[in-house]
Amino acid sequence: MSLIEDLNWRHAVKAYDASKKVSQEDIDKIIEAARLAPSSSGLQPFKVIAVSNQEVKNRLVEGALNPECMRDCSHILVFAGWNRYTADRIDHVFKYTASERNLPGDRFQDYTDKLKAIYLNQAAEENFHHIAKQTYIALGLALAQAAELKIDSTPAEGFSNKIVDEVLELEKYGLKSVSLMYVGYADEQQDWMAPMKKVRTPKEDFVIEI
Amino acid sequence: MSLIEDLNWRHAVKAYDASKKVSQEDIDKIIEAARLAPSSSGLQPFKVIAVSNQEVKNRLVEGALNPECMRDCSHILVFAGWNRYTADRIDHVFKYTASERNLPGDRFQDYTDKLKAIYLNQAAEENFHHIAKQTYIALGLALAQAAELKIDSTPAEGFSNKIVDEVLELEKYGLKSVSLMYVGYADEQQDWMAPMKKVRTPKEDFVIEI
Repeated sequence: MSLIEDLNWRHAVKAYDASKKVSQEDIDKIIEAARLAPSSSGLQPFKVIAVSNQEVKNRLVEGALNPECMRDCSHILVFAGWNRYTADRIDHVFKYTASERNLPGDRFQDYTDKLKAIYLNQAAEENFHHIAKQTYIALGLALAQAAELKIDSTPAEGFSNKIVDEVLELEKYGLKSVSLMYVGYADEQQDWMAPMKKVRTPKEDFVIEI
Repeated sequence: MSLIEDLNWRHAVKAYDASKKVSQEDIDKIIEAARLAPSSSGLQPFKVIAVSNQEVKNRLVEGALNPECMRDCSHILVFAGWNRYTADRIDHVFKYTASERNLPGDRFQDYTDKLKAIYLNQAAEENFHHIAKQTYIALGLALAQAAELKIDSTPAEGFSNKIVDEVLELEKYGLKSVSLMYVGYADEQQDWMAPMKKVRTPKEDFVIEI
């Protein structure tokens, strides 16, 4: 199927069958799509935390808009961004890139100097807005990959960042949670969204051609 | 090809062949992928402005990091978010959704009351951060769709929002530019990124499994 067919197939599932688990092979593909996502300057300022441990999932539920989804899905993918840009993080990415491309280690010095001049002069909060935006590209591609595999999913912002960050100890990685993606197989009886028509802004209201 | 193959195929093109134009049919597919993107509460708080008029493209160039890309690509897709959430905008989306699903017009009243209580009590700037994040999901899917069609593209934040907003008169639509996507066919001699190895954070550093 094409991407457009996959996007028409998917919907934000509202109830999962807790007895059905997604295979490691398929989870790996979904995470691979997120890993291949482009990001501003190629910094990839985030990680994905894949939570399948039921006890840990249960501890994330408090404060969630759809606690049953969180509890019953197979895996919760947590998109967690760097708490801010730092010189070390920027240097690490570009030294690795230079090494992978067999370029001199200082090949990107001018470019990283420019990035540092921008980001290190911003407040951490402003950094984090920019970082969080990059994670949404990866979220979109992970949702598309799940759809290609005919695996159900739900993107979610309705959760307690504080609880997720604490339970997953994200601070020790210098990360903060941005969004979640529930992955699993729908409970077809309980998923009230499934029979609903997919509604999007009509094309004529969505695009302006110049 | 699979999504993962498409994502491995694509790269951020650094030079376009100005003589090659993308067909309307293909542009429509790329915009359709963006239109089908999920968004928070389904509000789709953005539009895509597709600019192929050369004179208009030339006027957007000032302040761009890669002015030649902007000038020489076939189409510039501008992802432009609502300047803020309003009661009218929220009501409009949910009345349309109710109508498309043959539900009573007030079916989503409780839900929209909750959304308004959150968003209308935030500053416009905070609204816009949330809105801008949603556009990145659509940007990611549009990039994936271009790759599926073997059409070249470049996601771009390096441009003057002020100039883009003014030239495209986005204020009159209550929109503000967020990001750009250049679409076209690479100039294979000049696109210095093409021969470079794609580098991403290694899987073991990208994912934490719990």
